Amino acid sequence: MTVTSEFLRRIAMAAAAETLPRFRAQGAVSNKLAGGFDPVTEADQEAERAVRALINAEFPGHGILGEEHGSENITNSHVWVIDPIDGTRAFISGVPVWGTLVGLTVDGDAVAGLMSQPFIGELFYADGSGAYYEGPGGPRRLTVKDTTSLADATLFTTTPALFTGDARGRFDALESQVRLSRYGTDCYAFAMLAAGQIDIVVEAGLKPYDIVGLIPVIEQAGGIVTTFDGRAAEKGGDILAAATPELHAAAMAILRG
Amino acid sequence: MTVTSEFLRRIAMAAAAETLPRFRAQGAVSNKLAGGFDPVTEADQEAERAVRALINAEFPGHGILGEEHGSENITNSHVWVIDPIDGTRAFISGVPVWGTLVGLTVDGDAVAGLMSQPFIGELFYADGSGAYYEGPGGPRRLTVKDTTSLADATLFTTTPALFTGDARGRFDALESQVRLSRYGTDCYAFAMLAAGQIDIVVEAGLKPYDIVGLIPVIEQAGGIVTTFDGRAAEKGGDILAAATPELHAAAMAILRG
Repeated sequence: MTVTSEFLRRIAMAAAAETLPRFRAQGAVSNKLAGGFDPVTEADQEAERAVRALINAEFPGHGILGEEHGSENITNSHVWVIDPIDGTRAFISGVPVWGTLVGLTVDGDAVAGLMSQPFIGELFYADGSGAYYEGPGGPRRLTVKDTTSLADATLFTTTPALFTGDARGRFDALESQVRLSRYGTDCYAFAMLAAGQIDIVVEAGLKPYDIVGLIPVIEQAGGIVTTFDGRAAEKGGDILAAATPELHAAAMAILRG
Repeated sequence: MTVTSEFLRRIAMAAAAETLPRFRAQGAVSNKLAGGFDPVTEADQEAERAVRALINAEFPGHGILGEEHGSENITNSHVWVIDPIDGTRAFISGVPVWGTLVGLTVDGDAVAGLMSQPFIGELFYADGSGAYYEGPGGPRRLTVKDTTSLADATLFTTTPALFTGDARGRFDALESQVRLSRYGTDCYAFAMLAAGQIDIVVEAGLKPYDIVGLIPVIEQAGGIVTTFDGRAAEKGGDILAAATPELHAAAMAILRG
């Protein structure tokens, strides 16, 4: 079983055909959770449907775990994990830092994956041979930075409000030690880490589909991604990604409490 | 004196020719302020130089106020205000929510302007006849949303850390009343307000060049932009932009303290 870059590209295109026409359209936004503001669009649902159809046709019997339409065959050694639109809040705000995330796990390890931002026309993917970029500026291999010190690092998170109680104190402590921190990027920050633009990304309370597609991109670009206590990231949770082992260790020492 | 959309487009292209080749490159980042982290790139300086040359050639004698290269002829009734890269932190992080801002003031009022995001290939501009968009998805007129209630509004700011002391309490109070808040967008948030994607943008401590290019885009799309105490935004300061008069009044009542 081989996952080709061509198949990953087809997945990105199939999702884009559903997301792009609805981006910045005055479409309906439904509330997934009654009482809370958790927007999910028709784009989300239709994009996942399209990606599932491609996977079922190419790899019948492979498991699929998706944000919108649940799981099938997940006892198979090979399971695809889909977040059709990571960053729905960015999506409904018109800001193109959302992405389609699709990853393949084999016996629980994420081995191939992609993040696609079709409005900008960018694809970040990893197929087992390395991590790659296609988009404005031309195709290239993705490689993380070599930053080893927090004092030289740029840190991203979607919002500090993700961290509550003691965790907020630890996040603030980490933020106080880095050179620059920025908010508001969802999956796009992990892609920028893989691309060698930034150094650390932390997010709290991620679901597997929020991170599985990104793990191979980060790892095959040379980066490290785990939970705050150093466990495998594939099951989600509080996630720390860093460009180098030194930086990962320094950030984890603060975040794990 | 007429500012044509064609001239605004030429400005955007001249700036892009300097910014784009340096975006995501491993270029030098210098510290503008000794001791603080205020990155400014060669891109910033060269883009402003290119825009100034265009203005000087087309409108000799017009005043120019730029972030990088200071002011000339600013006693003229017509003064151009330039921020070659608004969002330098986003720029150096690889995230394409930075923009080139250029505005024309006549006797202190911003009458035409643009925000250009060349990596995505987007131009938001206003030429006196209205506000317009060119980019992925095709050209169209910009029109704000009709949201009138904070409870229905999406609020953007670059970071809550912009607000300190009592101002932070007032920002937090505003944030607690809106449906959704997001961070990290710099000038891009104002463009999304003009584009009818979001409802409120607040930023603290802006310089004139951070906002003048955006004022015509917001106003000619139907929005309102002032300081927190309702004065003209052209001189910068703490800035509130809103889609409707009702929303502007509701937000200002909280922010002005």
